[in-house]
Amino acid sequence: MKNTDNVRVVLVSTSLPENIGSAARAMKTMGFGNLYLVKPKNFPSQDAVALASGADDILNRAVLRENLADALEGASLVFATTARSRHISLPVSTPRAAANDIREYNGKVVIVFGRETSGLSNEELRLCNRIINIPSNPDFSSLNIAQAVQICLYEIRCSLVVETKKSYSIPKGDRLALSHEVRGLENYLKEVMRLVEYFDPAQPKHLLERIHRFFSRSELLRSELQIIRGFLRFVVRKLKQLD
Amino acid sequence: MKNTDNVRVVLVSTSLPENIGSAARAMKTMGFGNLYLVKPKNFPSQDAVALASGADDILNRAVLRENLADALEGASLVFATTARSRHISLPVSTPRAAANDIREYNGKVVIVFGRETSGLSNEELRLCNRIINIPSNPDFSSLNIAQAVQICLYEIRCSLVVETKKSYSIPKGDRLALSHEVRGLENYLKEVMRLVEYFDPAQPKHLLERIHRFFSRSELLRSELQIIRGFLRFVVRKLKQLD
Repeated sequence: MKNTDNVRVVLVSTSLPENIGSAARAMKTMGFGNLYLVKPKNFPSQDAVALASGADDILNRAVLRENLADALEGASLVFATTARSRHISLPVSTPRAAANDIREYNGKVVIVFGRETSGLSNEELRLCNRIINIPSNPDFSSLNIAQAVQICLYEIRCSLVVETKKSYSIPKGDRLALSHEVRGLENYLKEVMRLVEYFDPAQPKHLLERIHRFFSRSELLRSELQIIRGFLRFVVRKLKQLD
Repeated sequence: MKNTDNVRVVLVSTSLPENIGSAARAMKTMGFGNLYLVKPKNFPSQDAVALASGADDILNRAVLRENLADALEGASLVFATTARSRHISLPVSTPRAAANDIREYNGKVVIVFGRETSGLSNEELRLCNRIINIPSNPDFSSLNIAQAVQICLYEIRCSLVVETKKSYSIPKGDRLALSHEVRGLENYLKEVMRLVEYFDPAQPKHLLERIHRFFSRSELLRSELQIIRGFLRFVVRKLKQLD
């Protein structure tokens, strides 16, 4: 990634408009402008404009969405930020490690910030590929949203300034799979696993979570996604022929 | 320096008590507690306590001083923060470079943050040894005080804890799949693909190559390899049941 246009900030159900304004200011100071808001409690709001103190262009351009899934349109790599590590088993990065990965990345990147008090639901976390865990005082880790935005985007800005050195290149005519495409694949795989009785919905254990974690890490290309999908379709076809 | 006790934050003539409160919160999230205030406009203040949201112990312990010189008592290395580079000829560091220097340093370190609008006077700057210049959007570099405190102390915190290289951790009891295990999986997958007629050995195209490239990149864990293998075994079993 060469510039900051491919990074989107998504704020989920923010209660205080002041926090949206401060987050917009934090974004603009670091040179980012791409803001999506999922069901903000109170927006537009003069309190948001006041705290944005000059970054109101970002508020004016902010895109409103009904749920997190819709706010991820076009995205291929989705980070959730959280102070605590949850039970959900996604790969966890520091802001710096995430920023370094983002620098080497060619698709659209989204960074998701949860509610002031309750963060992100497990369902929302399942839409994400990676966790950014901001180093903080273990006895007082309550960064507010704007502070978390500030640190994450500061790291990305610092990392974009450094020369890029890609670890692998995407073949011509190919691209990274988008996150909704990967979600679709995961669902289809679940269906086929159910069909061959490998997956028992009554006893899901951690199977689906582990599959999601694997695909989240593996930066699937579109061509590879098509191969896996094609294979699964042939499995289903064969089962039907024999049935 | 081994811990955060040797770092002092000095806020010079802050106008808004909210900014003092937010700065205290930023300090506490990063594990710092040492705050000096030079002639704050309005302090103590309930607005400061409100914005500190839990970091009021830092406000209560804050030391008040009449001028910057007095607030530097006992300090041996003094950083001033500024968005713009001034005419004064002090060495300029990024927050990261400053944090690395602070890690190697054994004396008392002070980081000075100026007034909301006018920053530090030239006379005050002359009391400092170094400038920290926070990377920011050249067209909008107006970080507020708490944001600047947040970034500087975040960098110091990161530098004091050993930076880990890994961008994600391997869950306990798991390990990376060995390359011969992955080769075995690829062969088994090829067999099943042939079985469902997705793979035609007479026309291999680039299928096997692409699968290999995908698994080569994805750093499969042993648990994930077992899931894929298990799924494929169930596919084969189901096909045999129906056959």
